[in-house]
Amino acid sequence: MNVGNHLWFHDDHFHDECGVFAVFGHPEAAKLTYLGLYALQHRGQESAGIVASDGGRFNHHKGMGEVAEVFTEPVMKTLVGQAAIGHTRYSTAGETALLNAQPLVVNCNKGPIALAHNGNLVNAQQVRQRLEGNGSIFQTTSDTEVIVHLLAQSRAESIREAIPEALRMVEGAYSLVILTRDAVVAVRDPRGFRPLCLGRLDGAWVVGSETCAFDLIGAEYVREIEPGEMVILSEAGMESSYFTPPVKHAYCIFEHVYFSRPDSIVFGRPVQKSREMLGWLLAREHPAEADVVIPVPDSGTAAAIGYSTESGVPLKLGLIRNHYIGRTFIQPEQTIRDFSVKVKLNPVRSLLENRRVVLVDDSIVRGTTMRKIVRMVREAGALAVHVRISCPPIISPCFYGIDTPTKRELIGSQKSVSEICEFMEADSLGYLSLESMRKAVADAEGRYCHACYTGNYPTDFVELQLQAEAEAGDKTDVEQAFLGERGRRD
Amino acid sequence: MNVGNHLWFHDDHFHDECGVFAVFGHPEAAKLTYLGLYALQHRGQESAGIVASDGGRFNHHKGMGEVAEVFTEPVMKTLVGQAAIGHTRYSTAGETALLNAQPLVVNCNKGPIALAHNGNLVNAQQVRQRLEGNGSIFQTTSDTEVIVHLLAQSRAESIREAIPEALRMVEGAYSLVILTRDAVVAVRDPRGFRPLCLGRLDGAWVVGSETCAFDLIGAEYVREIEPGEMVILSEAGMESSYFTPPVKHAYCIFEHVYFSRPDSIVFGRPVQKSREMLGWLLAREHPAEADVVIPVPDSGTAAAIGYSTESGVPLKLGLIRNHYIGRTFIQPEQTIRDFSVKVKLNPVRSLLENRRVVLVDDSIVRGTTMRKIVRMVREAGALAVHVRISCPPIISPCFYGIDTPTKRELIGSQKSVSEICEFMEADSLGYLSLESMRKAVADAEGRYCHACYTGNYPTDFVELQLQAEAEAGDKTDVEQAFLGERGRRD
Amino acid sequence: MNVGNHLWFHDDHFHDECGVFAVFGHPEAAKLTYLGLYALQHRGQESAGIVASDGGRFNHHKGMGEVAEVFTEPVMKTLVGQAAIGHTRYSTAGETALLNAQPLVVNCNKGPIALAHNGNLVNAQQVRQRLEGNGSIFQTTSDTEVIVHLLAQSRAESIREAIPEALRMVEGAYSLVILTRDAVVAVRDPRGFRPLCLGRLDGAWVVGSETCAFDLIGAEYVREIEPGEMVILSEAGMESSYFTPPVKHAYCIFEHVYFSRPDSIVFGRPVQKSREMLGWLLAREHPAEADVVIPVPDSGTAAAIGYSTESGVPLKLGLIRNHYIGRTFIQPEQTIRDFSVKVKLNPVRSLLENRRVVLVDDSIVRGTTMRKIVRMVREAGALAVHVRISCPPIISPCFYGIDTPTKRELIGSQKSVSEICEFMEADSLGYLSLESMRKAVADAEGRYCHACYTGNYPTDFVELQLQAEAEAGDKTDVEQAFLGERGRRD
Amino acid sequence: MNVGNHLWFHDDHFHDECGVFAVFGHPEAAKLTYLGLYALQHRGQESAGIVASDGGRFNHHKGMGEVAEVFTEPVMKTLVGQAAIGHTRYSTAGETALLNAQPLVVNCNKGPIALAHNGNLVNAQQVRQRLEGNGSIFQTTSDTEVIVHLLAQSRAESIREAIPEALRMVEGAYSLVILTRDAVVAVRDPRGFRPLCLGRLDGAWVVGSETCAFDLIGAEYVREIEPGEMVILSEAGMESSYFTPPVKHAYCIFEHVYFSRPDSIVFGRPVQKSREMLGWLLAREHPAEADVVIPVPDSGTAAAIGYSTESGVPLKLGLIRNHYIGRTFIQPEQTIRDFSVKVKLNPVRSLLENRRVVLVDDSIVRGTTMRKIVRMVREAGALAVHVRISCPPIISPCFYGIDTPTKRELIGSQKSVSEICEFMEADSLGYLSLESMRKAVADAEGRYCHACYTGNYPTDFVELQLQAEAEAGDKTDVEQAFLGERGRRD
Repeated sequence: MNVGNHLWFHDDHFHDECGVFAVFGHPEAAKLTYLGLYALQHRGQESAGIVASDGGRFNHHKGMGEVAEVFTEPVMKTLVGQAAIGHTRYSTAGETALLNAQPLVVNCNKGPIALAHNGNLVNAQQVRQRLEGNGSIFQTTSDTEVIVHLLAQSRAESIREAIPEALRMVEGAYSLVILTRDAVVAVRDPRGFRPLCLGRLDGAWVVGSETCAFDLIGAEYVREIEPGEMVILSEAGMESSYFTPPVKHAYCIFEHVYFSRPDSIVFGRPVQKSREMLGWLLAREHPAEADVVIPVPDSGTAAAIGYSTESGVPLKLGLIRNHYIGRTFIQPEQTIRDFSVKVKLNPVRSLLENRRVVLVDDSIVRGTTMRKIVRMVREAGALAVHVRISCPPIISPCFYGIDTPTKRELIGSQKSVSEICEFMEADSLGYLSLESMRKAVADAEGRYCHACYTGNYPTDFVELQLQAEAEAGDKTDVEQAFLGERGRRD
Repeated sequence: MNVGNHLWFHDDHFHDECGVFAVFGHPEAAKLTYLGLYALQHRGQESAGIVASDGGRFNHHKGMGEVAEVFTEPVMKTLVGQAAIGHTRYSTAGETALLNAQPLVVNCNKGPIALAHNGNLVNAQQVRQRLEGNGSIFQTTSDTEVIVHLLAQSRAESIREAIPEALRMVEGAYSLVILTRDAVVAVRDPRGFRPLCLGRLDGAWVVGSETCAFDLIGAEYVREIEPGEMVILSEAGMESSYFTPPVKHAYCIFEHVYFSRPDSIVFGRPVQKSREMLGWLLAREHPAEADVVIPVPDSGTAAAIGYSTESGVPLKLGLIRNHYIGRTFIQPEQTIRDFSVKVKLNPVRSLLENRRVVLVDDSIVRGTTMRKIVRMVREAGALAVHVRISCPPIISPCFYGIDTPTKRELIGSQKSVSEICEFMEADSLGYLSLESMRKAVADAEGRYCHACYTGNYPTDFVELQLQAEAEAGDKTDVEQAFLGERGRRD
Repeated sequence: MNVGNHLWFHDDHFHDECGVFAVFGHPEAAKLTYLGLYALQHRGQESAGIVASDGGRFNHHKGMGEVAEVFTEPVMKTLVGQAAIGHTRYSTAGETALLNAQPLVVNCNKGPIALAHNGNLVNAQQVRQRLEGNGSIFQTTSDTEVIVHLLAQSRAESIREAIPEALRMVEGAYSLVILTRDAVVAVRDPRGFRPLCLGRLDGAWVVGSETCAFDLIGAEYVREIEPGEMVILSEAGMESSYFTPPVKHAYCIFEHVYFSRPDSIVFGRPVQKSREMLGWLLAREHPAEADVVIPVPDSGTAAAIGYSTESGVPLKLGLIRNHYIGRTFIQPEQTIRDFSVKVKLNPVRSLLENRRVVLVDDSIVRGTTMRKIVRMVREAGALAVHVRISCPPIISPCFYGIDTPTKRELIGSQKSVSEICEFMEADSLGYLSLESMRKAVADAEGRYCHACYTGNYPTDFVELQLQAEAEAGDKTDVEQAFLGERGRRD
Repeated sequence: MNVGNHLWFHDDHFHDECGVFAVFGHPEAAKLTYLGLYALQHRGQESAGIVASDGGRFNHHKGMGEVAEVFTEPVMKTLVGQAAIGHTRYSTAGETALLNAQPLVVNCNKGPIALAHNGNLVNAQQVRQRLEGNGSIFQTTSDTEVIVHLLAQSRAESIREAIPEALRMVEGAYSLVILTRDAVVAVRDPRGFRPLCLGRLDGAWVVGSETCAFDLIGAEYVREIEPGEMVILSEAGMESSYFTPPVKHAYCIFEHVYFSRPDSIVFGRPVQKSREMLGWLLAREHPAEADVVIPVPDSGTAAAIGYSTESGVPLKLGLIRNHYIGRTFIQPEQTIRDFSVKVKLNPVRSLLENRRVVLVDDSIVRGTTMRKIVRMVREAGALAVHVRISCPPIISPCFYGIDTPTKRELIGSQKSVSEICEFMEADSLGYLSLESMRKAVADAEGRYCHACYTGNYPTDFVELQLQAEAEAGDKTDVEQAFLGERGRRD
């Protein structure tokens, strides 16, 4: 889902926008969903929602905050039912944040429906305009709501028939879990941008964005929901069907580089395996004359271990992360140099002083944070600072459910590698090559999307998005949200 | 508006469900609306909302609580614009309360629209079913939302043309204020059930349910919006038109008996004038051998003064009201007799002891409260207790925007006057006659609705409502609200 | 108690600062105390506290807000015990408000003690300085805390012996309820400034500031606690003793004029009886050529009824009070004339137009509010406005537990009656005489304090207070509170 | 400080109870203190407080929650002054939590004083009893309050003279920062249990528990405050004096093992240096036949790197920590095996399967958590699990400011190493020896306290504490807190 405005994240990473989870056929469906969402909060931890069905009625709750804050004991008691779906996401600022929280819950002519979406539709604006022209009234600024209206408008008699009909009208990335009175439906878009996994627990079915959610509840991983597959979980068991002819897959490679939890299996492959391999290959492609390998915690740690192992340069925890970073932070009026980084990371002088340092991180978006880190490490006494990044330069925004800045804000699209090195004041800079990155995820068959590294997008409608983004002025989020003049990309 | 579930009020009165207010052409439109709502809180004080338009964009805020709690200084600062509408109402329990708060704000194919409604549509369910059949998705359980969907579905090109078209499809009571980007539209249903007044302030236009709202902001009362009239307030000034042929009027007589503030002019007549006259006529119709006239505060005070003046029996404040009644209240486990009344009223023994008392109130709904008061007065030493009520027995519920219990809960529909007297353990009981009540409001021309006293309803669709009410089971509010199985009356 | 800083009240009345309540020997002691405080909120409704003893341990809760807000169901469940005391008061601004909330609860060498105080000590500062000099650490800015330290410092072996010893060192007004592990002690200062009543309920003992608190819980009024009396309620029953030789009494006459609830018996006399008599005597002393008597609601209503009855001029509710006055209120930038009064009162033009009006209120402090009311009534069309006040001019502040402005802010101390009449723009002004006021409360024996009308104070130490008040600069409340530079009067 | 009741921490570590910080002579003293506390939250993150002095008046704020939550922008604006002290700590449950929050702020005969304490007094109960016997009233259950009363009782004329006098009466651990109107005083107990450092920033003086707080604000580390030293920071500059003759030092060795941040310099030595050395020495003392070294994140990571480097066995991130652990957590009714550990850690099957694993952590308190981790790792496919701990077995509780369970709950005091190995179901278990641990912190001179490993306590009064602990029954925290029946150790 995409709600048309964007919090920008301080730590200079791309961010996944959502995690989804669903359960069918368990007396504690909502509690398991709560635990599933809990394990998926790295995919978005600022709002959360759960809807449960007891066969007749829907019970639901959404709120701003972390899962353990939103779902208190009294709230959980109200979420009765053997089937449930849930959603966790990065919130957006302003009044519309809670309004846009998911799952969407509506009551239409096909009965009550709830829907949770991970991904982003690229033709949402076009579809919405057509629907509004016919008198539909949208309540949110979310691209996800067009699916709900397409379901309501469908002449199909049942919701199961309406889903394929509706999905054939949208384009883009969607891993969906849908709740009806008596079933959970899980769907993945034909290209399979975002992950979606199927599991079992004591005879019940579970669905989730990543397998780490299954581990927490002790569920068994069965398989991925396939691209273009619709799985219906009901009293009748599990039914699978495909709603479009097969197309070329486009798995998000960034899930392995950064988004997914290292303990998950994503697109059928353990993430930690990919991540260490990224570090090994990085050491081979870009060795360095150095005394210590220092990870940028926590994102660079796995690759740094790989780099250290392969290169033989010892690993040291030379940057310490502060664990208590609040969302708001009061700065002194008198400037403290590079304060925004200092508040998160502190160098360990005794490990850096008079050493040649290899600094390892997984990716660079704008580059401003890394510049401050390089400077901080040098001020702590490092003799040389070599920056190594375990993926190629990012040159293009994502329109498939990732929160990215505009093209012109991406340092990789504006500068060459040597210019970036100079900008960062590093002694050397090495990015992993596209080939090595694909090797690390075992992408022999070309099933992955790497548009953010190449600018080659696997769907239509992206030109319009890029153009809109280029034109986007200084409208505030609230006005965009309210007036339905949608955000940049949907 | 009617949201399909009902708080029941402890004080055994009918209650108005809403007050509306609007301003066009004033730089502080939202602040004036805030003050207008503040003065209208006797029409509903549990939630409030304001929407302002600055010509391009809508700015809005709604919340649960009293007006002065909901609208804080920072909130008010966001409500920029020269035009604004507002709504205050009795809230309903549960999660849907805020969802159903008004004004409704939507963005449809005719641009952004906000709408605030006082009254209740009697054919809302029928219209809604038709709209949902065509794929419309309703977000609330409110009857008011059908108007919004009718506006969106209309093939008229502008919102001004769409309003009459939409309103011709609904039946019932509605005093509406509607906000568009560049105008405020005020409409009153063809029978004129609920009041709606027009005023001026420094060149700006104001609209409100009662004139007491004009007094607070120093606005001048111009006239009533007429039944069936649509008034458009914009840069072009004030335009008036009628959207239906004239029908017989049906002003709510209860506005004069109880709802409206005594300092308002309603349906063109000062309310306090009606209320004292009710007391005078009551003294003439039902005199009593008594030593003191005691009002039930505060509802019976005006009529008690009239009764005392006309009868010559001295007025005494023999019942003292507690001013700090919270919404929730913890009772001791050990029963205190008639606690629910004691917590609100305390008798003054020195004024009641060894006196023959006339107890005056304005109306009786269920009768249980009055029975406790009679008992309490007698226990304080009264020799005799004569109850006098300044309107006739209420025998039928209202479907035009008033919160009333079902027919079978109305003591007037179940018992004769002498049975009621016995039930209350009073020495005598006198209700004002219908003729006197109509005389008190100067209704020579038969323009008032008195369906609650007679059962003669001025619109169709009421049979269905009565039947639904009779069948209504024990569904909880939440399930009714969510499943769209609507409340009793719409 | 007096906490050293003062909220000033908009309605231009003196205000009582506290109400106290206590129960011994009832399984629901805290719940009864809650109800007692509820009925006493006219004596202070901005913070409340209850402490219960179960024989071994104290359980307590205090909070800002009305009684029904502060004491929720879960809170009440924790307040276990057969004995309890409670306190309700006007809060003060700033951080210290909750800190200063009562009952005070401490654990000293004589065991746990809790104490609730209505009144004000006039030598608190002197005693405190001495105690601090000896190393005592005060936690609050309240005069009440000196009593607690005197109890802890006492060489008496038990708390019962320590109380008389401690109280002989303080001067001023105090109606106290004190809780120990196994008893409730109720004490009234030797002059009896503030009321304190004893009652019974089902074998338990209750103590409260006014009898209206007994009515709510169905307790029987036994008698007043006498001036200088200490009553101990314990398993051993009720024990009474006197801790000083008798002195001249000084009951606060303002309790009958304004503070106490009209349904209470205070100083042995029904308040409502005094209040009507004040109106009768006012009509005799200051008749007026007029068409209507209009009370200023609600403070003037009782006297207005007496005035109307005695004079024969009919009573009309010509000023309507708004019931939803919030504590904060946002004003429009563009001035609305006399807005601060309009927001509370609205004139009923149809009752005032072309009439000669007698406006009745109970007292005038600064006079600014009454000036606005006179103006408002005149603007509503009154031909003449005669102001009648049911007590004499107030010329001097109170130092015995009443919240009053400084001497120079009292209009009665600065202007003659004819100057006040002119200031108010009234056609005539009549104040009740001191003799009539004393007659209305049946004060033949001179047991009442009327220092605020005469400047004759019944205790020492008042000179110092007046002087301090005259010198008081612009220190903020917080600094006064923290630094222990105490407020004006203690 | 010790408040007499204890939260037990889920992660089976000892925990430091407090961090302190102070600034003198900087216009943004409170903001720097805020940042200092922010960096010290690993020493206690559940409540925080700051007091600032502007030379005349104290401004303060305390609250429950993390530093960035407690100190909002509006709060910070009130904390005016050139001198400030702050405190952050683990909160305790119940009503007394906020009451016990520090800094303590009182107004005594020597003027206003604020005090923040890291450590614990072992003779607090004895001193308190004596003070209460003389009439002192304690407001908290904290051992720290006795210092405040000793200051108030002192016959010394100034606070500077009173401090040494008071401190000579207490025994135990205390690193204190004290604020007076015009100075900051920093004191460390004669044995120097807890760290306390002095720094400079732009001409101002800063004091803090660890140097990581200086790094964040860009202050320069000057030196440690010495054991038994009192440093006064004022307009007159820095004055140092000693208040007792020198005694043997007793630095807490656990500060290097676990408590302090690795980027701090503590007791004059970089913590990270000690921590890696612990790992190296552990590998030498307890090698293992294994394929991978797996740290228990995050506490075991530094030692694991040392172990891996020394042993040559490759480091792998085989346990992934969940970053979103809320304070409360709802469990499903149906048991999930080892849920309490799963919710924090998830094994990475691809790294553990068919491998022989060395699991490294820094310490073991009860052992139950480690047992679950061993089991989890084995279930993920490990062929063998060797547990290595980078300190000796803990056999005795700490009474010097650390939150520890009772002796009988310490697995090291109840079982031999081989029994513990069996209990944990590990294939082997190795603890670092005391000599190696002392070598890792370079303790050639015997300046460190290692009572928790040996039971040899460096102060008196500990017998009483151990006895009290053995007798401690099941009194609730609240009753202990209120009745002043103090917790186990003071």
